Amino acid sequence: MSLKLYFAPGACSFVPHALLETAGADFEPVMVKLHKNEQNDAAFRAVNPRGQVPVLVDGEQVITQIVAIVSYLDAKFPEQQFLPREPLARTRVLESLAWMNNTAHPTFTHVFMPFKFAGTPEAQEELKAFNAKVYASLLGEIEAMASKAAAAGQPWLGGERLGPLDVYALVLLRWGGFAKIDPTSYPALWAHVQKVAQQPGVAKAIERERLQLNLYKP
Amino acid sequence: MSLKLYFAPGACSFVPHALLETAGADFEPVMVKLHKNEQNDAAFRAVNPRGQVPVLVDGEQVITQIVAIVSYLDAKFPEQQFLPREPLARTRVLESLAWMNNTAHPTFTHVFMPFKFAGTPEAQEELKAFNAKVYASLLGEIEAMASKAAAAGQPWLGGERLGPLDVYALVLLRWGGFAKIDPTSYPALWAHVQKVAQQPGVAKAIERERLQLNLYKP
Repeated sequence: MSLKLYFAPGACSFVPHALLETAGADFEPVMVKLHKNEQNDAAFRAVNPRGQVPVLVDGEQVITQIVAIVSYLDAKFPEQQFLPREPLARTRVLESLAWMNNTAHPTFTHVFMPFKFAGTPEAQEELKAFNAKVYASLLGEIEAMASKAAAAGQPWLGGERLGPLDVYALVLLRWGGFAKIDPTSYPALWAHVQKVAQQPGVAKAIERERLQLNLYKP
Repeated sequence: MSLKLYFAPGACSFVPHALLETAGADFEPVMVKLHKNEQNDAAFRAVNPRGQVPVLVDGEQVITQIVAIVSYLDAKFPEQQFLPREPLARTRVLESLAWMNNTAHPTFTHVFMPFKFAGTPEAQEELKAFNAKVYASLLGEIEAMASKAAAAGQPWLGGERLGPLDVYALVLLRWGGFAKIDPTSYPALWAHVQKVAQQPGVAKAIERERLQLNLYKP
């Protein structure tokens, strides 16, 4: 078996994890336990010096970064059409994918791992509170995407096929629970994410990562 | 003329700006003055509700996000090969482009616009200082990319053609000056960026934006 995915339960590595299962790929899932700090183990740093998941290994090739991995999987499993073939539709998916990856995702990182951005406890507390509010408004943007797709009768956020936007949306909405954000307060997104979770490949990845979708505690 | 680029001098919009000039594209450059807060003007918010540059307008289509715009320009000007054709080389460019865009770029944003992440002056000062150090180390990663390309006799960061990585590297190293980082302390990157700046299309964009490459003041 030459295909291997390093993932951490509930992390953004869920995106390629769910896509690999959706494609029915034969791959070896390798769990990296963040709560045991395994991302900083010498063995994992030898694979990815930046100490981040996801990492996709295909034979001799080691590929990091969601956008690059998704693009690679799209080329490797063309029948899945994870990215639309039509150039403009493809651009639209990349646009939202890049935004989820460079804006929504790092905003949550301020809530979950504020020590990456500031040293003192006071500044870290402020980062958490400030960015939890920003994050709630960014989830509102994804709610608008889900709402627009539903209104247009479009089954998935990127078009006619389940793709990276749907799975990333699931990850991002789930993270909201850690920021004390109730996922059900985004009705179109919550409905969409539940539909995404029921797809067989996605469900398989959820089962392996033992994920609970709604982490919110009032 | 149907192609239009909204840009702010020195911002990451320099990436598509320089690529459009490199392609010899017939486009209308529209300057958005950040120091006059024009990104929040109703007129610009009508174009991009997020109030960010770059925005590429092609006829009826409005495209945001560097990764999406680069992919779109690659398809629109195929003779330029802004992204490599070979799938693995293309994945490698997307990998570094995504990292520049979701890690290096937002780290600098903490130094330049800390108010985006925290409200109090104390936390903002800490964000600036903490992330200026992180930024210096991230520029070290781009220095390693430039050094590796030079050692391999590879003319550009993405391969045989000038592309988004080269132009983004110029932007990111130049920003270092605002974080009190001396660009000449990254010798391979500084040499590379100077070479990039001399290419005719890049030089034209530099002239329009009136950019000085080295902003460092000891």
